[in-house]
Amino acid sequence: MQRKQRKMSGKKKAKGELEIIRYLRKRFPKRRSEISEGIGEDAMVFRDGYVITTDSFFDKTHFDLEYFSFFNLGYHTMAASLSDIAAMGASPLAALISLCISKKIGMTAIRELYDGFAELTRKYRCDISGGDIVKCPTFGLTITVIGRAKAPLLRSGAKPGNSLYVTNFLGLAEAGRIALKGKFKETEYPDAMKKHLFPEPRIKEAFKIRKYATSCIDTSDGLSTDAFHLAEESGVRIVIDASHIPIHSEVGKLCAMQHKDPTEFILSAGEDFELLFTAPKMPKVAGMTVFKIGRVMKGRGLFLAQDGQERSIRPRGYSHVN
Amino acid sequence: MQRKQRKMSGKKKAKGELEIIRYLRKRFPKRRSEISEGIGEDAMVFRDGYVITTDSFFDKTHFDLEYFSFFNLGYHTMAASLSDIAAMGASPLAALISLCISKKIGMTAIRELYDGFAELTRKYRCDISGGDIVKCPTFGLTITVIGRAKAPLLRSGAKPGNSLYVTNFLGLAEAGRIALKGKFKETEYPDAMKKHLFPEPRIKEAFKIRKYATSCIDTSDGLSTDAFHLAEESGVRIVIDASHIPIHSEVGKLCAMQHKDPTEFILSAGEDFELLFTAPKMPKVAGMTVFKIGRVMKGRGLFLAQDGQERSIRPRGYSHVN
Repeated sequence: MQRKQRKMSGKKKAKGELEIIRYLRKRFPKRRSEISEGIGEDAMVFRDGYVITTDSFFDKTHFDLEYFSFFNLGYHTMAASLSDIAAMGASPLAALISLCISKKIGMTAIRELYDGFAELTRKYRCDISGGDIVKCPTFGLTITVIGRAKAPLLRSGAKPGNSLYVTNFLGLAEAGRIALKGKFKETEYPDAMKKHLFPEPRIKEAFKIRKYATSCIDTSDGLSTDAFHLAEESGVRIVIDASHIPIHSEVGKLCAMQHKDPTEFILSAGEDFELLFTAPKMPKVAGMTVFKIGRVMKGRGLFLAQDGQERSIRPRGYSHVN
Repeated sequence: MQRKQRKMSGKKKAKGELEIIRYLRKRFPKRRSEISEGIGEDAMVFRDGYVITTDSFFDKTHFDLEYFSFFNLGYHTMAASLSDIAAMGASPLAALISLCISKKIGMTAIRELYDGFAELTRKYRCDISGGDIVKCPTFGLTITVIGRAKAPLLRSGAKPGNSLYVTNFLGLAEAGRIALKGKFKETEYPDAMKKHLFPEPRIKEAFKIRKYATSCIDTSDGLSTDAFHLAEESGVRIVIDASHIPIHSEVGKLCAMQHKDPTEFILSAGEDFELLFTAPKMPKVAGMTVFKIGRVMKGRGLFLAQDGQERSIRPRGYSHVN
């Protein structure tokens, strides 16, 4: 079950949906010997290195056509899907796209949507190899991506003594979403708006970190949730140093204006699609930003070190669009 | 793009949706060397034998919860998905299920739905290895199945001189759908109703025919459409002998009552999920029914031989539920 929280819509609902995933994970353990990872990772994994992820996106729940063009939407949803492949340290090979078309979607919209998909699939050499086209009262789509890696990165390999890293600023995509929804000036939030509309799946960065990383996840659900998954799946204690979380100036500005604490904002802001990973030591790599934001210790759970104190934090989930 | 017509909803719409598939097929040719078949087959195919299919099913378009229990629905949709794997002569390995949950779907419904999936995945030794759970105003689901075959069967291998075979009666599922929708007596249409609610994916039959078959498709869209695909993809002329199409007594009874011609009914009745295949000669195989219903010739197109005449037939599509 991939991307558990990001698609869990509305904080009130999250409990019920987590319950479904726990139920499924218990009920459907891995049985076939060809499979090495089933429910619980960003993608399922075959022993020979194939990784496969599937994600659904629906109008009003996952995107808002008021400020998303069809091109944006194609790009954004493909980025989210490829991000799961990046989180496994894998190369994308093929995508299958199942479109649920409502009455308002014509051929022009479909061409634009595929222009958006193609912008990324071309860049990352991923074929579009099939799918399905169905009629549905609600417009939406499901993307399945197949990738491959010699040794896929998992959520479960973090070791005490490792550090926690992230490939870029966090919270920027959510700031962009708020700015776009609120019709703020584009000149005030250019990076944030771009990050929400055109996030970059970290395929190239995944190649650079994979020989160092012990565990990895993509930040789709907010730092608290994503880091919690690493801690839980690895059976370790992860401590995030609040003072080490980098705050992008546009996130700082938005939080100041809305009287929000930037750290709290970042703990629950999703869809940045950065890589959050653990490694014994991450050397400087040319052309890539990496921030060290925490450490892995013996024990269990997720903690935030702030003002000389460590407090336990729970996944805050991420309430999507609505 | 799998199962082209079955999901094309409403005959008026079919033209537009076929247009989308033609557009996509032209726009996204196979590029990666690891892939042997992309858009145009029942499943995409990797050179090392993995086959992957994805299918979406939505409330009111693809099923009717008035007479489908959640168990039925899980069974039916998994059968449809596994049928694509059978059509490739492959063994299923893993399924990823993306659920779009509307407000009315609670935990009990979800358990029943997965009971339905599990009835078939257990039987055919297919793991349920992940998926996604999202909120959507319309209840629906997308199933991705990964299978493997040494030499996947394609739609494109029919050769002049081959015969056309089908693994069972056709039209029975559609007769069952009409009988269930019309609230006809169950004792009058037991086989038909069972076929609509609990179709059997022809995984075992696929194993038995795959060493003889030159091309194969599953009958999801009506005989005219499915046979047309074989003729088109293989670049041959296929002639169906109307007198050789077996008519199940319940199909005959329903057609008589509704003043329909049984042959015409079968040409457009979908969702039987039988295997329609071509072979030089199909020997008798223990425990399996096979009907020879036509022949493959040099030329192009699909023809029906009836009353001493041969007439060209076009895909009649298959108008789903509504």
